[in-house]
Amino acid sequence: MAKGIATRKENYSQWYNDIVIKADLAENSGVRGSMVIKPYGFAIWEKMKAQLDIMFKETGHENAYFPLLIPKSYFAKEASHVDGFAKECAVVTHYRLKTTEDGNIEVDQNAKLEEELIIRPTSETIIWSTYKKWIHSYRDLPILINQWANVMRWEMRTRLFLRTAEFLWQEGHTAHAKSSEAIAETNQMLEVYAEFAEKWMAMPVIKGSKSESERFAGALDTLSIEAMMQDGKALQAGTSHFLGQNFAKAFDVKYTSKEGKEEFVWASSWGVSTRLIGALIMAHSDDKGLVLPPKLAPIQVVIVPIFRSEEDLVKISEKIDPIIKNLRKLGISVKFDNRDTYRPGHKFAEYELKGVPVRLAIGMRDLENGTIELARRDTFEKKTYELKGIEELIENLMVEIQDNIFNKALKFREENTHTADTYEEFKNIIKNKSGFVYAHWDGTIETEEKIQEETKATIRNIPFDSPEEEGVCMVTGKPSKRRVLFAKSY
Amino acid sequence: MAKGIATRKENYSQWYNDIVIKADLAENSGVRGSMVIKPYGFAIWEKMKAQLDIMFKETGHENAYFPLLIPKSYFAKEASHVDGFAKECAVVTHYRLKTTEDGNIEVDQNAKLEEELIIRPTSETIIWSTYKKWIHSYRDLPILINQWANVMRWEMRTRLFLRTAEFLWQEGHTAHAKSSEAIAETNQMLEVYAEFAEKWMAMPVIKGSKSESERFAGALDTLSIEAMMQDGKALQAGTSHFLGQNFAKAFDVKYTSKEGKEEFVWASSWGVSTRLIGALIMAHSDDKGLVLPPKLAPIQVVIVPIFRSEEDLVKISEKIDPIIKNLRKLGISVKFDNRDTYRPGHKFAEYELKGVPVRLAIGMRDLENGTIELARRDTFEKKTYELKGIEELIENLMVEIQDNIFNKALKFREENTHTADTYEEFKNIIKNKSGFVYAHWDGTIETEEKIQEETKATIRNIPFDSPEEEGVCMVTGKPSKRRVLFAKSY
Repeated sequence: MAKGIATRKENYSQWYNDIVIKADLAENSGVRGSMVIKPYGFAIWEKMKAQLDIMFKETGHENAYFPLLIPKSYFAKEASHVDGFAKECAVVTHYRLKTTEDGNIEVDQNAKLEEELIIRPTSETIIWSTYKKWIHSYRDLPILINQWANVMRWEMRTRLFLRTAEFLWQEGHTAHAKSSEAIAETNQMLEVYAEFAEKWMAMPVIKGSKSESERFAGALDTLSIEAMMQDGKALQAGTSHFLGQNFAKAFDVKYTSKEGKEEFVWASSWGVSTRLIGALIMAHSDDKGLVLPPKLAPIQVVIVPIFRSEEDLVKISEKIDPIIKNLRKLGISVKFDNRDTYRPGHKFAEYELKGVPVRLAIGMRDLENGTIELARRDTFEKKTYELKGIEELIENLMVEIQDNIFNKALKFREENTHTADTYEEFKNIIKNKSGFVYAHWDGTIETEEKIQEETKATIRNIPFDSPEEEGVCMVTGKPSKRRVLFAKSY
Repeated sequence: MAKGIATRKENYSQWYNDIVIKADLAENSGVRGSMVIKPYGFAIWEKMKAQLDIMFKETGHENAYFPLLIPKSYFAKEASHVDGFAKECAVVTHYRLKTTEDGNIEVDQNAKLEEELIIRPTSETIIWSTYKKWIHSYRDLPILINQWANVMRWEMRTRLFLRTAEFLWQEGHTAHAKSSEAIAETNQMLEVYAEFAEKWMAMPVIKGSKSESERFAGALDTLSIEAMMQDGKALQAGTSHFLGQNFAKAFDVKYTSKEGKEEFVWASSWGVSTRLIGALIMAHSDDKGLVLPPKLAPIQVVIVPIFRSEEDLVKISEKIDPIIKNLRKLGISVKFDNRDTYRPGHKFAEYELKGVPVRLAIGMRDLENGTIELARRDTFEKKTYELKGIEELIENLMVEIQDNIFNKALKFREENTHTADTYEEFKNIIKNKSGFVYAHWDGTIETEEKIQEETKATIRNIPFDSPEEEGVCMVTGKPSKRRVLFAKSY
């Protein structure tokens, strides 16, 4: 156990919080529910963003920017959408402060807005009010736009990264001539998210459709990727929505087809957020601190020189400089921590806490021997290597560590995935083992609600790869054609 | 004159607006004063952002993210700061909507915030309330942080990019142990902005200090870069502020020095915004549309095939594909516009309007001859070249066009820069010639205000490179040691 970090066993929730704070990722601000994302945490988000942005552009999307504030009337146009978000909206009502006679600052009541403005909780309404101006003919379609933005949902119980009032995200909003194209887009973006989660975050995910009750407010279908955290709970890591013509109808967005017919436009929207950082932490980290997959680590290799004098440090630096240059040429991010204000032991603990995948240490004896000590964060393996050829070894290690972290998470998920055939069995697993449970369900909201009330587990999704299998609902005994994925969740 | 664009001569302001709209850069939204930045405009911002971010990181800065909403009480802590911003603040007062019995959506009066929250117009207060937690010892300094964010200033008269209620920007906020370090940082970041403006935006700028009355609210010194637009007006393109200990004192941020003494921390802040896109447009564009310097052009080269049949297009594509690949290898962004829904003439006009630096056109005759037609956007020069070696020619042309656009803007500025020794002369220039005027000023706010009232020209800055020169104020006859820069401004 690292200094000041609870173990996962003794208090999982505290462990998570401790890591966020001690690894310098984020902290609570003086503004209720809003966090400060610190440089180290933000550097992870920048890496995520850069890769996702590449993947969005490769699939033909462009970025744009829409207003933060949405007039209340726009917001209210799509009925189920406003129902879904009304209870968590921050509302701007005035546009000026004034100084009172006794020198206090207060809201100027003469500067009241005629129509209140909502800070976007998501941007479908403002974007579709804009698409109305952009779309006239089939030639204007498809529109494939993404926005990187901050959004605000006034959550009552917040947790750093996992649920905050303000968070950063991307939201894709696409418009299509045909239903089939919008559905294909919805599927494609879920695949992009799954690829990102597995290949970059080293986090295996289950792809599937949400049940009706868990759909996005305004969607006909919501797809999700679900990942298992180390307490066995599921975390929804990304969603992609097929919106049908709901927003096109709400904002009267029609196009003239090649055949000269007027038709409503079809839509998708999809998003991932800074919540992914929470998922990344809970998927891989251990009781010593953060564990980062190399592809998302702001620092991939840290080099700690062991020196007693300025002279020693100069000698070590001379030896190490070309290695640093070579590693950087290979695209590996390296930090050489030559501070003399902290001892090596302190530095070792710091980088362990911060999840740096590879730590190198080199002292005067190593210089004589032409060696260097290498420690892996994922396995704690520590070994001394020849300096010569260390760059290639590290390059390969980046891949090996990435794979190892993924495989470890996959193994954990497999070990904690169960099937239940009876409701008793199901309740028993949820209560005593936690994890994912595949079980038959009759497809009704009533049964879903009953299960949630009695066990706190919910349907995470209806997995795409769940095989067809005749069965009966574990609760009602009604027929079911495939098992769905249940779990407690974040 | 291009279709639908006013000329600069007949209506400069309309010309600007026409270009923003016709080149698909941005448009007004349904939210008063807030714009939609369209994909093409946003792509320019992404290019600016990417380069600035590199420059910030090269100078040792890290990115982070602070809350959008600032409690009113934080905001009020620095007196001159709140004075400067109070009149343009969007205020959040409630956190929930509700549906009324007759189905309307209204603000839930039961969800009133105890303390109102301000949408950040700038983040000094929220950031310094956080730095208080981060800074204890000299070891914690310097802090060199930048934030990319949206901010909101409730402007009454807005213009796309130049002045909008919401805009995108970056804001650097640094904390230092010594006054001299904070001043050095303030200067360094102005140099970064100047280099970006000149080398990337191809826009010459005058670096200098603002006069006292034009300082940032809460700063001891504000530095700026000022560029000349094609109507002779100045546009402030970036500012860097030395904040002294004002915010440290307001938020009680002290550090213990090496010698064990408690001291207040010194600060700088600096920012540029989407306003730069407005500057870019007004610095270089012409009556045919946008003119973009290659380094910031989302599309640097467009290739338009001239074809009558699908067969022709296939032949052209075969010839062009390897050239596209070679250009991309050189880091040049290329678009091959093979749409058959528009004619070549339409495409030529479109890319001219959008300021694409180089346009290539290739038809069947060119295929036979092994040639291609190249048109430069900056000079309208059109010439036929051998296909062989065209990549290298284009690579060199990128540099040449970048330089040419800069030199043209510099020449324009020089031709429109004047000196005035008497107030009569000054008024005459401002009235009849416009442009920049170097003149002596006695250093008082009163004289500054008088000049502004009578001529609408203001002191843009006190240029760093204005030579020492004994003189007398053109208005009061009092002594002055150097000329300052006057102009009308945006």
